[in-house]
Amino acid sequence: MSDMFGAMSLAQLSTLIQNRVVDPVAVTESVLEAIGNHHDQSIFTAVFGDRALREAAASSERLRQGRSLGILDGIPIAWKDLFDIAGRATRAGSKVLADAAPADKDATVVTALQRAGMIAIGSTNMSEFAFSGLGINPHYGTPSNPAAKGAPRIPGGSSSGAGAAVAAGLVPVAMGTDTGGSVRIPAAFNGIVGYKATRGRYPMDGVFPLARSLDSLGPLCRSVQDAVWIDAAMRGLSVPQVAAGDASALEIVIPTNVVFDGAEAGVIDAFETAVERLTRAGASFARMAIPAFDEILALMAKHGTLVTAEAFALHRERLVGPEAAEMDHRVVMRTRLGEKISMPGYVAILEARDRLVNEVTRLLGDRLVAFPSVAHVAPLLAPLEADDDLFVAVNGKTLRNTMLGNFLNWCGVSVPCGTGEAGMPVGFLLSAPARKDETLLSAALSTEAVIRGDFV
Amino acid sequence: MSDMFGAMSLAQLSTLIQNRVVDPVAVTESVLEAIGNHHDQSIFTAVFGDRALREAAASSERLRQGRSLGILDGIPIAWKDLFDIAGRATRAGSKVLADAAPADKDATVVTALQRAGMIAIGSTNMSEFAFSGLGINPHYGTPSNPAAKGAPRIPGGSSSGAGAAVAAGLVPVAMGTDTGGSVRIPAAFNGIVGYKATRGRYPMDGVFPLARSLDSLGPLCRSVQDAVWIDAAMRGLSVPQVAAGDASALEIVIPTNVVFDGAEAGVIDAFETAVERLTRAGASFARMAIPAFDEILALMAKHGTLVTAEAFALHRERLVGPEAAEMDHRVVMRTRLGEKISMPGYVAILEARDRLVNEVTRLLGDRLVAFPSVAHVAPLLAPLEADDDLFVAVNGKTLRNTMLGNFLNWCGVSVPCGTGEAGMPVGFLLSAPARKDETLLSAALSTEAVIRGDFV
Repeated sequence: MSDMFGAMSLAQLSTLIQNRVVDPVAVTESVLEAIGNHHDQSIFTAVFGDRALREAAASSERLRQGRSLGILDGIPIAWKDLFDIAGRATRAGSKVLADAAPADKDATVVTALQRAGMIAIGSTNMSEFAFSGLGINPHYGTPSNPAAKGAPRIPGGSSSGAGAAVAAGLVPVAMGTDTGGSVRIPAAFNGIVGYKATRGRYPMDGVFPLARSLDSLGPLCRSVQDAVWIDAAMRGLSVPQVAAGDASALEIVIPTNVVFDGAEAGVIDAFETAVERLTRAGASFARMAIPAFDEILALMAKHGTLVTAEAFALHRERLVGPEAAEMDHRVVMRTRLGEKISMPGYVAILEARDRLVNEVTRLLGDRLVAFPSVAHVAPLLAPLEADDDLFVAVNGKTLRNTMLGNFLNWCGVSVPCGTGEAGMPVGFLLSAPARKDETLLSAALSTEAVIRGDFV
Repeated sequence: MSDMFGAMSLAQLSTLIQNRVVDPVAVTESVLEAIGNHHDQSIFTAVFGDRALREAAASSERLRQGRSLGILDGIPIAWKDLFDIAGRATRAGSKVLADAAPADKDATVVTALQRAGMIAIGSTNMSEFAFSGLGINPHYGTPSNPAAKGAPRIPGGSSSGAGAAVAAGLVPVAMGTDTGGSVRIPAAFNGIVGYKATRGRYPMDGVFPLARSLDSLGPLCRSVQDAVWIDAAMRGLSVPQVAAGDASALEIVIPTNVVFDGAEAGVIDAFETAVERLTRAGASFARMAIPAFDEILALMAKHGTLVTAEAFALHRERLVGPEAAEMDHRVVMRTRLGEKISMPGYVAILEARDRLVNEVTRLLGDRLVAFPSVAHVAPLLAPLEADDDLFVAVNGKTLRNTMLGNFLNWCGVSVPCGTGEAGMPVGFLLSAPARKDETLLSAALSTEAVIRGDFV
């Protein structure tokens, strides 16, 4: 059993720990060992051995004394390498920050889960500065997608290590961030669950930014229930206030424009099979165009993107200095595009955003939205490493569906819904307007129960 | 009684109307007549005689049939000349929009109050494009401050006509907008109540913008209770959910930095007298620096202001075309400063804003904030008309206290608290963090009861 802890759901592992079948120290030792022995050493960029064992010992002591902090006590979690961990440089996937001053304290969300008893086990790899949805990193290596049987495929990004760590069975949960899809894309590509909370749901102190008007975060894990538990703890709740709703009460809009453009047949099949199952379970679907989607693409074509503008604003000194030579040249090239975005152009995007958010919120009413998290499965790694143009094209296509949600300030959960091309996982993305996270998670619990039944 | 209707509070006028002591048609005719006969013809830029009488007749008919729409049925309201009124060009105080296409429908908030039975009586004057806190308008004239006994004084802006219309007793309530203080400043200068709701509390459809990240709106009226009724109706509620709290439960922070800098002695006296009364009534005050205030001033000095940036983005085509020659040269000059604000500079302001909003919200906890709405009373008009440099200096000083609230996304109520220099009114500004409008209004009701007792 000793090397399976990381492959369990939170619920399974928690049951073992709370019933004293296994000790948190044994779990942590086993997880550290599994990470150390794993064939792909590019998933984690650091392992916090001492800290993790210290936290595990404290957890063990609490449990021995009957003072458990709750269901998450003693469970390991991995943190994307842009969450501050006290005493360590937060590298955000970049070499230029490798010698940065160590963080003087943990990010607020790290502290929140520590207070729930979770063990910070290590930091996971990511796209440099979180600025790509593919997960390729020339500095720290690119984690291989654990679901790929043949030639290596990308894990998706930017939370590449988070997705691979959970999918490889190394940890039950890894925290990611999501500015354009960086939680939901690796969840979909790796066949796991990814929950992108509404922006602002958790404090962002100690989280290295990409684009503050879009940055959000959330867990990659094995089940929606696991995400619900993590969410509750991040909000300081000892008991989640979300329970599965009735699948027959689900009312879901499926957009007919943009999100299926150029979609792979296998992705469409997997998605539609899920829709059929949900329909049989009583859920109702309405297929309609969401005009805002086309407007968002037109806005991006006219003015550039919010991500590019804000990433440029954040990194502009770095881009003109000697550090640029140490950065991924693709990140440099793509960030520099922000130089062309004018202040009035940026203001125009923000204003259009407000308008479109209101428009879509009115259109949806109390309904949720569903479409494939990504319109294709995880692509092969080698061609993307070799070809800048291909990289840019595939990156844009990979981010296309999820970034609509960031722009519209949605929350979303990517739930596995079987496999598509090359037997690779497909993600069913359920989304809801801002701050409807409880509604979303409740619907995702019932959705998952229906669509995963015999996929997993 | 016939020319007093506009000088009544909503409560007084409503009692007369609901009890059928006066008919809405008589009220409207009287108000229209008073406006037409008023010595200062620069307060209103248009009067909607036909529409008002039509609405009044409908109200009269409802009341006769016992189908009153509620407390506001049959009560006239004036709209700042930037709210769309179907069939009219929305001029926003500018000549360049005088021949604009007529609005095809009312602004959403106009419709909301029409549904509550209110009579749209006319549009009120304003600073051109709402871009000044003084209320001087070279195109449509500058309303005189009705509280000034000697030489003409400014009414404050940008909702200049709204403040003067209520203070002159022409209407019980006038709707304003507030981007940097444009509701609270004229309320303070004219000795009436002004409520700036949290940005986003009401729909902004059909409201001509100045700077969308700051634009908010709210009523100028005679009492906080009147504002509470208007607020409820704007939100579609038939009964307000706000009642006066206990003054002894008030916990209020008085900032020691920025807001008293260069304040007139009379303003300080009037404010401190109000504080004394509240203290005697059991309210507790904490005097402390709010470091964010200094940071906001430093940000503005370094990058420029959000208002300037967004106004430039909005008007930039106008500023380089022939229309610029028809605009107030001061508005042109001040808007053009936005050209120097870069996209990264603008992003830096927005990011700092998020940080400071969180910081101040944490600092305040459940407490409110109080300081003088403006650190001086309404200045004389003539010197400001004559001198561009003086205009810029006084405009900045006039907006200084209130704009802190816009930047920090606060809601606020300016309540009259006696008089200062030259016997001119002073405003006591009570503010609360975003979306605490109910808390604010409840506290403002009790604050007003204590501090206005024998001022009015």
